[in-house]
Amino acid sequence: MKLFLGIDIGASGFKYGIGDSKHGLQHFATKRIGEKSMDAFRRIAQEILDEAEAWDILGIGIGSPGTISQPEGRILGKNPNLPFFSDLCPGDLIPGHLDLPVFVENDANLMALAESALRDCKLCVGITVGSGIGCGIVQNGDVFHGAHGFAAELGHSIVYPEGELCSCGQKGCVEAYSSVDGIRRRLHNMGSSYAGMALPNLIALRNRIPELDEVLLEGEDTLIRALANLCTVLDPDILILGGGAMDLNMYNATRIEEEVIKLLPEALAKQIRCCIAGYGNRAGVMGGIMLCERKLR
Amino acid sequence: MKLFLGIDIGASGFKYGIGDSKHGLQHFATKRIGEKSMDAFRRIAQEILDEAEAWDILGIGIGSPGTISQPEGRILGKNPNLPFFSDLCPGDLIPGHLDLPVFVENDANLMALAESALRDCKLCVGITVGSGIGCGIVQNGDVFHGAHGFAAELGHSIVYPEGELCSCGQKGCVEAYSSVDGIRRRLHNMGSSYAGMALPNLIALRNRIPELDEVLLEGEDTLIRALANLCTVLDPDILILGGGAMDLNMYNATRIEEEVIKLLPEALAKQIRCCIAGYGNRAGVMGGIMLCERKLR
Repeated sequence: MKLFLGIDIGASGFKYGIGDSKHGLQHFATKRIGEKSMDAFRRIAQEILDEAEAWDILGIGIGSPGTISQPEGRILGKNPNLPFFSDLCPGDLIPGHLDLPVFVENDANLMALAESALRDCKLCVGITVGSGIGCGIVQNGDVFHGAHGFAAELGHSIVYPEGELCSCGQKGCVEAYSSVDGIRRRLHNMGSSYAGMALPNLIALRNRIPELDEVLLEGEDTLIRALANLCTVLDPDILILGGGAMDLNMYNATRIEEEVIKLLPEALAKQIRCCIAGYGNRAGVMGGIMLCERKLR
Repeated sequence: MKLFLGIDIGASGFKYGIGDSKHGLQHFATKRIGEKSMDAFRRIAQEILDEAEAWDILGIGIGSPGTISQPEGRILGKNPNLPFFSDLCPGDLIPGHLDLPVFVENDANLMALAESALRDCKLCVGITVGSGIGCGIVQNGDVFHGAHGFAAELGHSIVYPEGELCSCGQKGCVEAYSSVDGIRRRLHNMGSSYAGMALPNLIALRNRIPELDEVLLEGEDTLIRALANLCTVLDPDILILGGGAMDLNMYNATRIEEEVIKLLPEALAKQIRCCIAGYGNRAGVMGGIMLCERKLR
């Protein structure tokens, strides 16, 4: 059976899997990032390739944080969560002598690509909540890139003029309030002792510690405002929430749907649905496989 | 020569023209709306059709305010500026016995369609500033409707949570600050004696009356914020500003471009351009002609 390798590069680890869109994943695993350097990234990639030798792989689809130029597959500009992984081609992690086709996309675009295939939808928006806020738009089964490849930067839409400073240099971006790093920064700025706590514990304590509940609710409400404005402009079929923090139920998809709907024009409000990623934390890997499969079709 | 009739229905008048996309307009004129009723609208439509008999017309393209369902061409929901012109098909203004194909689109979508044809662009966003704020998106030469036909409602994206009440029932929409009606309401709420002044005079006086300058600048800044967030999500080639108030230079397209760019992620900021409608107040009529021509191709 001809299969594909999907690799989803995140700030804390590499997720990877082998499969195809028809049968799903044959294999899925994760490698945590220890040292944050290109050498370490190359070693992890080689370990994944060694493991993948047990299957007949036709190509590789890689999801990476950052804005990825197409068709070059280069990360444009700074990657705030992985500063050394900026202005380079993630595809170069795969040695050329393997002679395998490699395609690179933004990680949230791949999540949206995989999730859109699970549903009957014309326009699907995927949002990943993790260190940052990722967003991908899939239109009729293809990633929507905008005119220059920079579309779907929902994390950097501005909700609060003159608000919290974001890693991108702007003020009041969604990412500065709704991402995990944003929430930690908000807690830190409040002088909270919980800013450095592991995320699962932080989420578990929210009902008992008012400052945690306040900051998490602010993050959810900020995301709601940005999603409502995205819906008003795009009119998507569905909003799909994924990413590491959604796996831990940091935000409530049911409440997000209810609150987004309240902010929409009447006709649109009846149409919008919000749900969590069907592939969970495997959506990016599955999207990488699907991207590769489509490109080689 | 085979020609098309374009009709652009606005809150204050019907603009109409005869032509095709290759040669432009052979004829253009305006009829002001006196009595606001369906009977009056039918009479105006009949006068336009009588006038059009001098040409060989193949079909009619109509631009209307409001959200228009496709392919039915029905206005969905309330039309705040023309309440009687709600939940009906504007195409019914054309008597059936004429046996002419009639196509209906949102007026801002038609403006964007016409303007996109003037430029080499993949993704073009047109904004009409008038009684309301209209918006249309054209992708590769076709109107972008979203999943349900409700896309591009930029006027109802929310910039100020808990802000000014909008005619749509939400608070803090762009339209409540940046449209002509919104500006009048802002002045009225300030107790300003200029709220009812004719728009050209109001604009002419802005440099001498601080309250006018303040409210017009607030309207421009609100539009800038919403346009920046639209760009962050869509990554268009170009933003085109049109509509009656832009014909009177109510807002400054150069300043809008400069300020939108300041609010964008770095890579995107280098790409976005903003300009005024090339067809001026004829863009909607020209778009109606182009729509009809495409549908009959």
